[in-house]
Amino acid sequence: PQDWTELDKRAVDTIRVLAAEAVQKVGNGHPGTAMSLAPAAYTLFQRTMRHDPTDPNWIGRDRFVLSCGHSSLTLYLQLFLAGYGLELDDIKALRTWGSLTPGHPEHGHTAGVEITTGPLGQGLASAVGMAMAARRERGLFDPEAAPGTSPFDHFVYVIASDGDIEEGVTSEASSIAGHQRLGNLVLIYDDNKISIEDDTAIALSEDTAKRYESYGWHVQHVEGGENVEALEAALAAAKAETERPSIIVLRTVIGYPAPTKMNTGKAHGAALGDAEIVEIKKVLGFDPEQSFQVAEEVLAHARKAVERGNAAHVEWQRSFDLWANANPERKALLDRLNGHELPAGWAEKLPTWSPDPKGVATRKASGEVLSALAEVLPELWGGSADLAESNNTTMKGADSFGPTEISTAEWTANPYGRTLHFGIREHAMGSILNGIALHGPTRPYGGTFLVFSDYMRPAVRLAALMKLPATYVWTHDSIGLGEDGPTHQPIEHLAALRAIPGLAVVRPGDANETAAAWKALLSRHDQPVGLALTRQNLPVQEGTDEQGVARGGYVLAEASSGEPQVVIIATGSELQLAVAARKVLEAEGVATRVVSMPCVEWFDEQDEAYRNQVIPPSVRARVTVEAGIAQPWYRFAGDAGRIVSIEHFGASADYQTLFREFGFTTEAVVEAARSSIAALEGNA
Amino acid sequence: PQDWTELDKRAVDTIRVLAAEAVQKVGNGHPGTAMSLAPAAYTLFQRTMRHDPTDPNWIGRDRFVLSCGHSSLTLYLQLFLAGYGLELDDIKALRTWGSLTPGHPEHGHTAGVEITTGPLGQGLASAVGMAMAARRERGLFDPEAAPGTSPFDHFVYVIASDGDIEEGVTSEASSIAGHQRLGNLVLIYDDNKISIEDDTAIALSEDTAKRYESYGWHVQHVEGGENVEALEAALAAAKAETERPSIIVLRTVIGYPAPTKMNTGKAHGAALGDAEIVEIKKVLGFDPEQSFQVAEEVLAHARKAVERGNAAHVEWQRSFDLWANANPERKALLDRLNGHELPAGWAEKLPTWSPDPKGVATRKASGEVLSALAEVLPELWGGSADLAESNNTTMKGADSFGPTEISTAEWTANPYGRTLHFGIREHAMGSILNGIALHGPTRPYGGTFLVFSDYMRPAVRLAALMKLPATYVWTHDSIGLGEDGPTHQPIEHLAALRAIPGLAVVRPGDANETAAAWKALLSRHDQPVGLALTRQNLPVQEGTDEQGVARGGYVLAEASSGEPQVVIIATGSELQLAVAARKVLEAEGVATRVVSMPCVEWFDEQDEAYRNQVIPPSVRARVTVEAGIAQPWYRFAGDAGRIVSIEHFGASADYQTLFREFGFTTEAVVEAARSSIAALEGNA
Repeated sequence: PQDWTELDKRAVDTIRVLAAEAVQKVGNGHPGTAMSLAPAAYTLFQRTMRHDPTDPNWIGRDRFVLSCGHSSLTLYLQLFLAGYGLELDDIKALRTWGSLTPGHPEHGHTAGVEITTGPLGQGLASAVGMAMAARRERGLFDPEAAPGTSPFDHFVYVIASDGDIEEGVTSEASSIAGHQRLGNLVLIYDDNKISIEDDTAIALSEDTAKRYESYGWHVQHVEGGENVEALEAALAAAKAETERPSIIVLRTVIGYPAPTKMNTGKAHGAALGDAEIVEIKKVLGFDPEQSFQVAEEVLAHARKAVERGNAAHVEWQRSFDLWANANPERKALLDRLNGHELPAGWAEKLPTWSPDPKGVATRKASGEVLSALAEVLPELWGGSADLAESNNTTMKGADSFGPTEISTAEWTANPYGRTLHFGIREHAMGSILNGIALHGPTRPYGGTFLVFSDYMRPAVRLAALMKLPATYVWTHDSIGLGEDGPTHQPIEHLAALRAIPGLAVVRPGDANETAAAWKALLSRHDQPVGLALTRQNLPVQEGTDEQGVARGGYVLAEASSGEPQVVIIATGSELQLAVAARKVLEAEGVATRVVSMPCVEWFDEQDEAYRNQVIPPSVRARVTVEAGIAQPWYRFAGDAGRIVSIEHFGASADYQTLFREFGFTTEAVVEAARSSIAALEGNA
Repeated sequence: PQDWTELDKRAVDTIRVLAAEAVQKVGNGHPGTAMSLAPAAYTLFQRTMRHDPTDPNWIGRDRFVLSCGHSSLTLYLQLFLAGYGLELDDIKALRTWGSLTPGHPEHGHTAGVEITTGPLGQGLASAVGMAMAARRERGLFDPEAAPGTSPFDHFVYVIASDGDIEEGVTSEASSIAGHQRLGNLVLIYDDNKISIEDDTAIALSEDTAKRYESYGWHVQHVEGGENVEALEAALAAAKAETERPSIIVLRTVIGYPAPTKMNTGKAHGAALGDAEIVEIKKVLGFDPEQSFQVAEEVLAHARKAVERGNAAHVEWQRSFDLWANANPERKALLDRLNGHELPAGWAEKLPTWSPDPKGVATRKASGEVLSALAEVLPELWGGSADLAESNNTTMKGADSFGPTEISTAEWTANPYGRTLHFGIREHAMGSILNGIALHGPTRPYGGTFLVFSDYMRPAVRLAALMKLPATYVWTHDSIGLGEDGPTHQPIEHLAALRAIPGLAVVRPGDANETAAAWKALLSRHDQPVGLALTRQNLPVQEGTDEQGVARGGYVLAEASSGEPQVVIIATGSELQLAVAARKVLEAEGVATRVVSMPCVEWFDEQDEAYRNQVIPPSVRARVTVEAGIAQPWYRFAGDAGRIVSIEHFGASADYQTLFREFGFTTEAVVEAARSSIAALEGNA
């Protein structure tokens, strides 16, 4: 471009050399794409994006997602140059203990990193969520503004690699993005035709551009990573296209200009070697004897991004203030959400249920909670991966989120709607929820069958790693699903999900515990929560306790003597078995306590005194009962305890038959209690 | 078609009525697609496919995959009509305990069911694996035959729904299918534009046909589920196209001809109701008063599939016998593989390593095993999801599997090649391995980082459910991965994978245990096995035992006194810590046994006497050590035991720093042992 100066050129070349050197210094990493993407990333951070390095959380900023997280230097070097607080020593500390420059970008660890990326596909798929969130937030705060005029208008930029493009999660999310006509989403696909197994021709021969056309995207091509002029024109055209997401297929040469390793897999994921780096420096006019050279004038030039960012911020602030003055109620809502506050009296809207042996399915209770909260919590929105009616994820009266043209006989869509329709795309749903939660202060949820949490697991793990407040409505949570059989019956899923550090798995034992679970999870803002809910009706129990649910576990029914001989610990649909078993045992004179344990993770957060009060160490006769594998329960059962579990796949039949045949009965729990007591007596 | 008789028409109409009635009888299920797909499925089973209902395992048969497993009646009714052994009572027993007609088709449970389907996308993705396996097997047994002339030539037919098409795993697999030019794969996409949330327009607006063109597929359209003539022409054209996989976009009306519910979501997943069924019977000319009517002449007509199948089988047998006579060595190989036998002396090819403190990474040992077995076990083949060099999955000298045109500077491909390149598509890899294992007697493996087992988890679960001998080479199995940081470091994965019923997770402690693990898993044929292998070098230990590995756990080092005070149980890279801790403890006079436990599942298979011999119940001072979460270890540690684990995400740094900072040190294990002993003394 005409205004592309020698300093810009030197800045880009500096990035190339630093990328090679930083990897060489630590001895491992990914230099190649950071080198070849240098002009594109520099263009975005210095010329295209609206952002303010001094305020990485400015809500008016454009978002940048580096989907190819392995090329973290692509981002770190821009953050360094633009003035986000990273300095040359941080670049030198790449991939070392305690540094601000870990192997993959980590949100919350390094200022300016919008999202933790690395597992391929996740960044791009979450960016779709960000773009959706931007529209929904605009709808909440400034729906009447003309396009492009609102302080809530901005763009989401993504750089993605061959790996991102090959992953199925991006296929799902890209189809959704086209369907949703996300004109605020701009993707640069780094088409370098090299992955770890070298030339991608060995594994990839699809026409990716045509594939994106089939999704309804706006597709452009730019030849050459150095072709900044064409890239800028393409970016301008992408921004001008407001009805479709844009993909720019940017043909780059990985590792450019490394003389022997560029355009090979050797430039992808390993240090280039000192000799090669010397040659790179020579090619680019750097002193081959010196390391980590950053000319003062280059840095000063790039750091002007701060000034420009501040100016843009000031300009934006003016428009924001006008909006705030004109929209005091919406401003109050924004402030409340940004403050992670819930409105006074909100919890009074929660439904309650009277004890009732016939009861209600917890999925249905959850649906009633959502509808009850619809008005008081506008930040809450979500939907299902094509199981809305089964997951009970639709708030009564809520419009669907999408262009009006996608409306059907059953659903009315508008661009600011609230009900999400992910289609049969669980993985993209998980990633999109992450993007929504990262983008702003709304509270997204998404539903599917618990067994299909497997499909979204990589996204759930990232939510846990980033501590994002996404909520998963996982229904049909056991063999209680019934006739659909073993492919649809979760057996191992509660254990497998509890295994993820930081994720809370909540399996309420009845309708009131379900409402309490929603109350507790909405009161938190730094944790993904998965609700495990039943298909089948559960009795509404006496004695459930909202505070107890929030603490993860509590005494639902005390031994009549006040001094339990045995403690039965249960979750979800098996709570009723514990309650029924207690009656039998008490009638036999066995003092029996029932502990409801809807959330192991929240229980583990409680102090030892509370935990010991609920499950006294001295009472070693214990039974745990949950329609899943035993793995999570050994630590609660202890050596003398008994675990009522299922260690094999399920079967297709009505749920009553399955519970009986697979040993989830009152009698089985009673017998387990007797056995545990007997074991202790034998040992005594 | 001209030869489509009144009996064919009545057979198809019979299917429609039976589908509606079977669902009505049990009260739940999916009638709509079974009704609208009746002509297409009938055409496949009665007119298109080569199959023999009296020999469902005939290796010359065409394969049929019902990817939309929820429409199980589509398959069951064909199996009933064609004479696979299902009778009308089985249809009436749909979705009930013990029936041959569970909610979703279950391979190994009902004759003629090629694959368990239901989790959407898996069937189509596995069909790609079947089509690949067909070519690889042809290459093993009959590579010189002209196209279409070999007894090993046949087709793989798939019916897939909107849900299958939306799932990312099919995007991955379909891209691979186009890349691999699988001319033997024919997909009918049931484009009925209805899913559970009703009109798919709410969630799907991509141009799916164009998307499949972009993958390099041969795309055809057929309007109308009743349009058998056009469908047959399209099927013929699909078979004639031998260089590309074919998709036939078949526009159907779900639930046809249900008067009020067809073409709505109400026909998808619920019983239609008696009144509607009466109307259907009237429309189709059935007696509305009677149920489950199957005219004798209709059944007799359809059961002629047996005669035709037998005739086709006889004809094929002639060609097979000619082949067998001409190819005695290949025939012997086929017999060996079909008999699940390994060749005499094969295990002598396995490499061994001498004790060595510097050691070798277990991923590297695994790679050496594969290369060593390449010649003696031609059935073994596999590859990686773009991590070949990291996963060490390439056998030395093996060609790549694919059209010669996909060869690159690094890889030489031929259609019968052995090295698989999945691209960055872990999920499709998992599903494809399932398809390969289902198709025939070869032994497939696939590699990625252990952390990305999450991406393939739905496929792994189905492998476990179907008891398929797929092998997963999961390397970089802990924080030992190092600098790539928390997104790439498995923490919860060993626990989460062990949670899957039937899957064996094997984490060898050194190179010799790695070879033993391969030996043990190749000796089994009814279980998927995941190998968890290190990136970093591990010392080669004294005392490892091949038999011990096959039994899952064994005494690696006995207490010097022969009577252990404490037992340390370890896996993988932490085995060395147990060994080192034992030395320290023994020097302190603490009699210490080290148990190596590479596979908990195989250990659990052993009899109680063996298990108690390895971990004596009387020795309650115990330590477990594994660089993952504690969840799987409580049951081995017991109340007095101590667990050395990691309960949070990792970090980006060199692995030595991470092990030290996160408490995986000899001293930590020693201290845990002391603590466990002290706890017992305190209790005594």
